[in-house]
Amino acid sequence: MSFKSSKIAIVGVGNVGATTAYTIINQGLCEEIVLIDVNKEKAVGEALDMQHSIFFMNRNINVHAGDYDECKDADIVIITASVPMDPNATNRLDMLSGSKRVMKSIISSIMGSGFNGILLVISNPVDVMTYYAWKLSGLPKNQVIGSGTTLDTARLAVEISNLFDLDSKSISAYVMGEHGDSEFVSWNTATIGGKRLIDVMNDNTERVNEESFDNLKEQTIKAGWEIFHRKGSTTYGIAASAAAIVKSILFNENKILPVSVYLEGEYGLDGVYLSAPTIINNTGAKEIVEINLAEDEKKAMDASNDIVKSFYEALND
Amino acid sequence: MSFKSSKIAIVGVGNVGATTAYTIINQGLCEEIVLIDVNKEKAVGEALDMQHSIFFMNRNINVHAGDYDECKDADIVIITASVPMDPNATNRLDMLSGSKRVMKSIISSIMGSGFNGILLVISNPVDVMTYYAWKLSGLPKNQVIGSGTTLDTARLAVEISNLFDLDSKSISAYVMGEHGDSEFVSWNTATIGGKRLIDVMNDNTERVNEESFDNLKEQTIKAGWEIFHRKGSTTYGIAASAAAIVKSILFNENKILPVSVYLEGEYGLDGVYLSAPTIINNTGAKEIVEINLAEDEKKAMDASNDIVKSFYEALND
Amino acid sequence: MSFKSSKIAIVGVGNVGATTAYTIINQGLCEEIVLIDVNKEKAVGEALDMQHSIFFMNRNINVHAGDYDECKDADIVIITASVPMDPNATNRLDMLSGSKRVMKSIISSIMGSGFNGILLVISNPVDVMTYYAWKLSGLPKNQVIGSGTTLDTARLAVEISNLFDLDSKSISAYVMGEHGDSEFVSWNTATIGGKRLIDVMNDNTERVNEESFDNLKEQTIKAGWEIFHRKGSTTYGIAASAAAIVKSILFNENKILPVSVYLEGEYGLDGVYLSAPTIINNTGAKEIVEINLAEDEKKAMDASNDIVKSFYEALND
Amino acid sequence: MSFKSSKIAIVGVGNVGATTAYTIINQGLCEEIVLIDVNKEKAVGEALDMQHSIFFMNRNINVHAGDYDECKDADIVIITASVPMDPNATNRLDMLSGSKRVMKSIISSIMGSGFNGILLVISNPVDVMTYYAWKLSGLPKNQVIGSGTTLDTARLAVEISNLFDLDSKSISAYVMGEHGDSEFVSWNTATIGGKRLIDVMNDNTERVNEESFDNLKEQTIKAGWEIFHRKGSTTYGIAASAAAIVKSILFNENKILPVSVYLEGEYGLDGVYLSAPTIINNTGAKEIVEINLAEDEKKAMDASNDIVKSFYEALND
Repeated sequence: MSFKSSKIAIVGVGNVGATTAYTIINQGLCEEIVLIDVNKEKAVGEALDMQHSIFFMNRNINVHAGDYDECKDADIVIITASVPMDPNATNRLDMLSGSKRVMKSIISSIMGSGFNGILLVISNPVDVMTYYAWKLSGLPKNQVIGSGTTLDTARLAVEISNLFDLDSKSISAYVMGEHGDSEFVSWNTATIGGKRLIDVMNDNTERVNEESFDNLKEQTIKAGWEIFHRKGSTTYGIAASAAAIVKSILFNENKILPVSVYLEGEYGLDGVYLSAPTIINNTGAKEIVEINLAEDEKKAMDASNDIVKSFYEALND
Repeated sequence: MSFKSSKIAIVGVGNVGATTAYTIINQGLCEEIVLIDVNKEKAVGEALDMQHSIFFMNRNINVHAGDYDECKDADIVIITASVPMDPNATNRLDMLSGSKRVMKSIISSIMGSGFNGILLVISNPVDVMTYYAWKLSGLPKNQVIGSGTTLDTARLAVEISNLFDLDSKSISAYVMGEHGDSEFVSWNTATIGGKRLIDVMNDNTERVNEESFDNLKEQTIKAGWEIFHRKGSTTYGIAASAAAIVKSILFNENKILPVSVYLEGEYGLDGVYLSAPTIINNTGAKEIVEINLAEDEKKAMDASNDIVKSFYEALND
Repeated sequence: MSFKSSKIAIVGVGNVGATTAYTIINQGLCEEIVLIDVNKEKAVGEALDMQHSIFFMNRNINVHAGDYDECKDADIVIITASVPMDPNATNRLDMLSGSKRVMKSIISSIMGSGFNGILLVISNPVDVMTYYAWKLSGLPKNQVIGSGTTLDTARLAVEISNLFDLDSKSISAYVMGEHGDSEFVSWNTATIGGKRLIDVMNDNTERVNEESFDNLKEQTIKAGWEIFHRKGSTTYGIAASAAAIVKSILFNENKILPVSVYLEGEYGLDGVYLSAPTIINNTGAKEIVEINLAEDEKKAMDASNDIVKSFYEALND
Repeated sequence: MSFKSSKIAIVGVGNVGATTAYTIINQGLCEEIVLIDVNKEKAVGEALDMQHSIFFMNRNINVHAGDYDECKDADIVIITASVPMDPNATNRLDMLSGSKRVMKSIISSIMGSGFNGILLVISNPVDVMTYYAWKLSGLPKNQVIGSGTTLDTARLAVEISNLFDLDSKSISAYVMGEHGDSEFVSWNTATIGGKRLIDVMNDNTERVNEESFDNLKEQTIKAGWEIFHRKGSTTYGIAASAAAIVKSILFNENKILPVSVYLEGEYGLDGVYLSAPTIINNTGAKEIVEINLAEDEKKAMDASNDIVKSFYEALND
């Protein structure tokens, strides 16, 4: 009998990894979850806590701590492990050296198991780390995805929906480029319930104006820090983003999500991992959607490209 | 203690009414469902069958057959009852006379209970019947909604998603106007993953062209008949549409759905029930979104207006 | 890449088959559903109707009409097809001859595809038809399951829960044996929230007594007919039962459900398909649980055995 | 219009409170969640993080930070706040003095808002704190519930299910009495798929014996510490327990759960909060189920009674 259970391995069981597993359990997305952490005891404790929760869930899921050899038959491996931020680091990209070391070790262990599924990288700086994971793994580009600006896009939708007292899911407005300070919003293609946001602005000058756009983008970029300085980590948003990507892969949904993908010609860029709307199914990143960026948006995409690529050299030693 | 359970009454427990109840049960949307039908035994049988299903559901729901006095404390009453089509009728609107009689009796019974919630009308011809229900009920316009082109919009999304092998939920393209042959698609505002459909067409001339647009609209309008002549009724699509509207009301979601609403100035029309994107929350139709129609789309909206209004006189006797 | 989508084929798309598919869609249990029916157009119409519903669902599912060759890589094939009841038939078993012919053709087509998953038989008389399907298929016994008294057990739980105003899922009381008039309740092992039903009866003589037990069993057996004579079919209960079995298989839940399984020594019986509590996971019927039947319950099980076996000879021509 | 949204307030937004909110969001149980914490900024950060997650959820939920006046129209207030454990405390009960002060202030603020819903107390020592909250609040006993041994019962089910490779939901075995070291298991009423655990033991002597029972109870009691020493807190199990209680209240499910309830005669005890199987619906603790305890189990219940009551005097100053 050829039954193949759906299985997810999560590497790094800190706040983000554990909350991602718990989100997947709550939503009943797969049959088996393996938690892998250098601190094996931490993974055992989290798995035990989650097992108790499943008694109250609609769907039984087999969650347990494990080792890298369990990646062999995983459909998806999610990498959340990252190196604690250097206190002297002024931005995400400064912490690269420790992250490289960790990623090298992780990818080596994952690939050593015989893994041939989809790698979902959440570790920051995500566009650089996803590229690095792809290079190290030797997997086809469609099988290596970064969470990218999926979360930023959710944050922007929440900011806009608050302005108009709307369901955030009725907003379509992509944050693109680098998951970091150079990210930008494609206002040109943003819509609310099918109406261009630019037109909404013109019709609601009392609620929205040019300045609002800048504010919305600023709030989106700052949202992570707003949460971080209040609770010491960001967990629910990123975990739910990761679960959404997992769902579109496992259920072959062909949903469009702005994940970090390897560009080869799209948006006039080449050889770089950046976020763009992408059709996600069980082949991973099936197809990149090229939306119509305004001139300043194209420039912002180029700027993200330059920033991210400037770190690629540092990966080659 | 002030606990108020959420309660839905469904008037008319044919295929559509029963399937709507079953969808609400599967999705765990409320605490109580009352099934009301002139054939009380039918309602009893459906309720019993559904009760058995709940043993296997995640959420316990109290479903039972009942009378109109149960509408008194219902949050939503869904009217699905309609008169079997006159064999000589050539379109939905011809069957008006029987439908009027039934609607009069139903609204009188519902309002007689002291009901003051949201009326969701599914009975066809839905734009005429919703208007009639609103007039008879004396309820504020926001509390009376027709399912309208919510289903047609889903059908269009499915057609487009098949063309591009995409999740239908990644498509934003509204069918508007009359739920009937005069309905139209707002291609001008249609997007796929944030990209205007018109641009997608230009970039994929091998997959889409002007003719495709006409075909897509034609398939959308014909979809109901395609199903009807194969299975004798349409049930799942309309039931799921109704459940989506119910969810946005009960969970105060502020979701935008193209329901049939009373226009008073919006889209330059007045005193008519037609479908347009509308923010739905627990006040019912909270706000109509005026999207930017192209010239030919405006004309199509006007044509729907004329057709639907031409039947209003027939309601005044 | 080794990704394997979960796939279910449903053979026979009448009320039961279609509602089972719709339940699976609502609950988001798999990635792909194939509808197979001799009336291919009916299957196409149902699939189209369901596709529209998915626009409103949380999870995208690929549902379509298909042919038997699609069973090749299905994890589960659900057989709902049955021959319309002979008007002269006085019980389920009289209709055997037509059912045999249909089952022979179906199993031949399914196995011809190279299918090697789990067969879930719903067709009545289910204990006879499941046995026949098992014989014809040549599959190991754990891979061939009948829905059996899963639905009857739900019906009994609903009757008991109504008596005590309780969640039916808090009731544990198995209906066992033949899915038919000879079925029985294991009152000896029945509990409510951990309390033996026999003790509950002694503590609540005003609500329950010996006679109640007989009434509860009678109502359970009659429930199908109560629904049938009011709505012309039974659909929701059986569809939800089938979906629960599917869920325990696909998610490897190891849930205990009273399905029809092949007994080889269990309950002192041999070579017969009857319903008993069974652990269901992705190997199908993993293990039969032998609960402690009272003397009269053992006799009832033997009686079911005799009745069902008496029909096996008729299968050997 | 009389629409009443369902609303939950959570007092104390540490790991347990925040994870409880996130679980409720994932399961789509209500329309509005208010997070209340002395550290208002922490509550704001958690709410913001959760808002981003909702973009990826099936149901839109309004989650925000707020003040006690928001309890006025809440259906349920969940109290998770507790005082950090005194390093010299040798058990849960030693930390009483700080907890008293905090509970007094919380209840005063909640009741000052005009709250008249259901209080769900999670703060430890839960049986003492729930009693104290009940006394201070002046609410009827059915409206004040402690999470009690709901989580311990889940933990026991997981331990048993691991032993037999079963879905934990197929296990019925209550942990009762004090949520603490004096808690006990009612082995006398424990069943697996309808079979008494004592019989299962006799039939599977290679897998279970008298000693296993002691081990299972010991593992259950120790589970919290096993998790705590590995991850520094226990979150998922308790959050999922709380969400299950919330679900049975809001959806009026009449589910039986072993919560901490005020005993007045039940189990021969009086004037004490202890855990026993209880029917939970939208009146709160609707009815306590008196299961048949064995003699040693009765003695264990009495012992829990003595321990918990010994702390009541300390509450009267």
